[in-house]
This record gives sequence, structure tokens and C-alpha cells, in this order.
Amino acid sequence: MVDKKCRQFTLASRPAGKVRETDLAMREIDTPSPAEGEFLVQNEFFSLDPSMKGHMEDRSDYRAPLRLGDIMAGRTVGTIVASEHPDYPVGGQVFGFLGWSDYTLTDGKRIPVHLYQDPVDPEAALGVLGGTGMTAYFGLIDIGEPKRDDILVVSGAAGATGNVVGQIGQILGCRVIGIAGSEDKCRMLKDELGFDETINYRQEDVGESLDQLCPDGMDIYFDNVGGEILDLCLDRLALHARIVLCGGISHYNLTQKPPGPSNYFNLVFRRSKMHGFLLTDYSQRFDEAREQLGTWLDTGQLIQKSTVIEGFPQLPAALVKLFEGYNLGKMMVRNDKFLN
Amino acid sequence: MVDKKCRQFTLASRPAGKVRETDLAMREIDTPSPAEGEFLVQNEFFSLDPSMKGHMEDRSDYRAPLRLGDIMAGRTVGTIVASEHPDYPVGGQVFGFLGWSDYTLTDGKRIPVHLYQDPVDPEAALGVLGGTGMTAYFGLIDIGEPKRDDILVVSGAAGATGNVVGQIGQILGCRVIGIAGSEDKCRMLKDELGFDETINYRQEDVGESLDQLCPDGMDIYFDNVGGEILDLCLDRLALHARIVLCGGISHYNLTQKPPGPSNYFNLVFRRSKMHGFLLTDYSQRFDEAREQLGTWLDTGQLIQKSTVIEGFPQLPAALVKLFEGYNLGKMMVRNDKFLN
Repeated sequence: MVDKKCRQFTLASRPAGKVRETDLAMREIDTPSPAEGEFLVQNEFFSLDPSMKGHMEDRSDYRAPLRLGDIMAGRTVGTIVASEHPDYPVGGQVFGFLGWSDYTLTDGKRIPVHLYQDPVDPEAALGVLGGTGMTAYFGLIDIGEPKRDDILVVSGAAGATGNVVGQIGQILGCRVIGIAGSEDKCRMLKDELGFDETINYRQEDVGESLDQLCPDGMDIYFDNVGGEILDLCLDRLALHARIVLCGGISHYNLTQKPPGPSNYFNLVFRRSKMHGFLLTDYSQRFDEAREQLGTWLDTGQLIQKSTVIEGFPQLPAALVKLFEGYNLGKMMVRNDKFLN
Repeated sequence: MVDKKCRQFTLASRPAGKVRETDLAMREIDTPSPAEGEFLVQNEFFSLDPSMKGHMEDRSDYRAPLRLGDIMAGRTVGTIVASEHPDYPVGGQVFGFLGWSDYTLTDGKRIPVHLYQDPVDPEAALGVLGGTGMTAYFGLIDIGEPKRDDILVVSGAAGATGNVVGQIGQILGCRVIGIAGSEDKCRMLKDELGFDETINYRQEDVGESLDQLCPDGMDIYFDNVGGEILDLCLDRLALHARIVLCGGISHYNLTQKPPGPSNYFNLVFRRSKMHGFLLTDYSQRFDEAREQLGTWLDTGQLIQKSTVIEGFPQLPAALVKLFEGYNLGKMMVRNDKFLN
């Protein structure tokens, strides 16, 4: 059953510093019907990601910015509910960059989608098996080059990518130290996800805690936050350490460029590297990642951790909450229109 | 003929900001004689290196700092003039960390030396075939991973390491842009050493010049200076670029830590890395480097470029001049006592 009405969020204004709920405006249109070669997806789960702020801003980053009035961009998981395309049958479950809309029409090319062969848990599809899980996988394995007994420090550890990085580190035999922003988050990391150690950066002196937990320095630092914590980690590298630059959520709310990491020259003394990467470069290997991550999920070695907010109209509020550190694990919104 | 008197420079005070000539004090001792298993080297050429300031300071860096009163550390080339060691015959030419002294006594272990099998030009021994040449070799080849037609930008390009980096880059088919601090230096780089392009950072807007010379960004940035030029290069990286962190001469005169590179996050957008290294890690491969660099010297593809200051007593003044950017190529002092 396809509803005749389709809610959408469009970009109403560009964030000035922080994202505001009013930067997004909801509208209702008539649900379109697929023409020859098209199909219609109902979007059931929406992924919330820090990089979304980049799409909302008028910057020349790694993805073309949105224009004002465009439908807000974002990853979703959904089901094909109408189809005039032989390869995309009604009932098929898909993942794609389908945006903040109840329904999305595509031919599978102008917006590429991944069609699952077997039903998949939508939370895992957006989380461990989605962009954030694969970011953790390629970033840690390809850029971090983990070895058994390496000390792996991960910041933003309770976030969507960070928690998966730590879990994969555990699977590969690293000693994992997670840095997060609340007691609840730290408890979750140790008790549910098996992190070896945690640091609550809001209550502890991060430098002192690192000195105690890894007095000889860290082999890998997986950086999801930038800022002061990056600098503290730069000062505590083991020889030949690898810093994986994944995000800089501490920057995302700033309008001015923050100061650079003043301890960067320690990369010379510790013969270490700082390496940025983007998931886009690994598209040829997504199947490999999904298969390995899926196997770890099936065996229970890897746990999908999500914070799910109910209701399509909550999308802007959920995005604001993401930047406030509200979520444990992957932040997502479930579409109330399609609740069973 | 061994002189009975031996001049030495000792560390008189630690540099406060800039190195001063008065940080070093000259004294004269009686020249020692080798005991069983020892030999005596007359130091004919002295290498001047930015890292010397690190040895003079009381910092926990990559090499143990000197104590006040210690003989100033430094690389030299010289000749064995007395020997009670069967493996080190009189007349043998050696290279080692023998310090600022007319003569140095060693057993070849407490201060290791490299004994040349064939006579070598002392300027090349300290330059292209010495620490700076090998730093250029391993830094560019192992860390920079140059490919034919890569755009290689090198700062401190007229300095001891930088000029060799650029020359090796040319040999390997890169397009080489050198950044240096005077018209004389830029002319030397283009006319004598075959650099493709140069930028005089004292007269040009480095960012604008880079935009003109490599509008699509650089593949390799070999950083000898740090500071603002590092930041400008971070902002102009090609995809998958490599920044080789070798030195930070712009830091060496500062007492406070300088600001970090605020454009570092571009490493993510350009999927690039910044990688520090030290020559010490490559000691197992010194022979490989010396052989390749020697071959390039012999064929004339690589040119030894030096600034030689005459006279042992000029050592402190030469060190001060090094930090003022006085030298073209490798800075060294020739010992007046042993001039032929």
C-alpha cells in the first residue's frame, strides 16, 4: 500500500556554526509513480551522520553541497513498493543515498541502490553493514594496520564508527582503549562491547589517563574527533604508530577553522604517520567488508548498537542530538509511516 | 704528523631560542694517543646540521641531549693518523659522529665509524653520501613513494637535504618544484641542479605561486621547514598525496611550540598521509643508499652541492649561519689544521 502523500525535508538554510532544526523544512507532495525503468522505495530507516553537516554547508568538500530547497541527503534502508524495473522487484529490500523523504523514485542509476539478496536487519544495514561499519572496517584494517597486541585508542568510541572500530580491534587481538563522553557510554563499551579500558573525557584528565593505561604509547589512534584529544594522542605515540584520521566532530560545530594539532612534529620523533581516508575509495571492496562484518555479526563477535528515534518528523531534532553526543552507537530514525 | 695540541668545542650553555656562538667554548687539550685496540682520527671536515640544536637542548628527543661541558656532537670525515687497532690502519679514511675536536680517539665501537674502502670526496661523504643524502634518499623513496610524473614540492630546497631530494626526484621522473629563500638559491636550483620550477618564499606569495605551478595539487610534499608553508601545502594536495615530514627548521629557533598545521584535516578530504621518519631506522640499508647515490654521483646525474667555511674556530659561527639560511647545499667546515 503506497500512501498518496509523501513527506520530505528540504534544506531551508545553511547551518551557521551548529545545525538548527529550522535549517530543515518539512513539506508534503503527492507520491510519484514509477515510469518505465523506475521503481519507488519507501524509506523505513534513516541514518544520521556527522558528515551531513558538510552536505548542508556551501563548501567544496568531498561531496557536492546541497542547494537550498534540495531534499536533504542521507542514507536510508527501505523496501521497493512499486516497480517498473525488471531488476528491482516489489518487496525487495534496498540501501542507498535516498534522502529524507517517505518515498524515493529512482532508476537505480541516478541514485544507486544496493539490493539485498536476503532480508537484513535494517539497523545493521545502516550500522555495522552500512557506511559507518565499513568506514570502521577499512579505516582500521587498511589504514591502521592492526597487529595482535597493538594498543588501539579510539575516540568518539561510543559513536557509530568508533564502537565498531573498537569491536573489530578486539576481534583482531588489540588492546582497546575507548574515549567517550559519559559514564553510560563508558559502561556500555566495557560491559556490552568488551572494550578493555575506557576514558570519560568529560570527567577525566585524558592525558593522565592515557599515561596510566598505555605508558609506552599507543600503536594506533583512530581519530573521530580531532581537537585537543588528537593533540594529546600525538604526544603519546609508540614508535611507528598510525593515526587514522576519520572525522573531526569537534570541528563540525565551528564556523572558523580550529587550531591545528601542535604536537604533529612528534610524528617525526616517533616515525609515525597520520593518514586520512574516505570510504568512497573502497567501493570495489564493499562486498568483502559486508561479508566479513556479516560473519562477525552472525557469530556474535560483533554487536550492532543503535539509538533509534521514532518518527519521520523527528529527523531534524535527531540530527541536532547527534552533534550533542546523545547517541550510543549508530543514530537513526525509524519512519512512523511504515511501522508494523 | 700528529699535532701535540687538540682543539675542541664544548657545550658552554644551552640555546635559549636561537643558537649563539657563545653557547660553545673552545679549549685546547693534549692530543691523546691510542691504547691497544684504539685509533686516532684527525677530523678534516665537519658537518653542520639543524638537528644539532636538538642535541644542545635539554629535551627528550630522538637522541640523548649533551651535558654542559661535553664535546659538541657532530658528524665528521677524517683520516686515521695513529692506530693500535688491526682493522683500522693509519691512512684509512673514516666517517662518523666524532664531534667537534681536531682529533678523536675511539675503538670503533664506543663511537662507531664507517671506514671507506676507496678514497671518497669528503664533501660528498658528508653530503650526498652522508646523513643528509641518505635522509633525502629514504625519505623520498620510502615515505614519498614517488612515481613518474608525480608533482614533488620540496621546501628548504636549497638546503642540504632539500637539494638532494629535488635532484633524486628529477632522476625518478617527477616534476620538481623547489621552495627556497633567495634569488641566488632559486637560480642555483634551476640552473645547476635542474629543478623544474622554484618559488622564492621571501618575495612571492607561496600559495599563489603553487596555485599557478600545480593547479591540481601536489602528489608529494617533502617538508623541511614546517610552519606556514606546510599549511599552504596541506591545502593543495592531490588525491592520495604523501607529505614527508623531515624537519621543521622554522621551529628550531622558537622556544615555544608553534601552532599546528590548521589545514591538517584536508588529509581526510584528499585521502592523504603525513608521515614522519628518522634516518636511524634505515641503518640496515645504508649500503644500498650509498651505492645508489654513489652511482648517480659518478654518472653526474646527482651533483654534490656544498657551502664550505674555512677554519675549525669558525664552527660556532657556521652553526649560527646555518639557521640564518646562509648555505647553498650542505653546510660544512674545513679544518684549517689539516689543509694540504
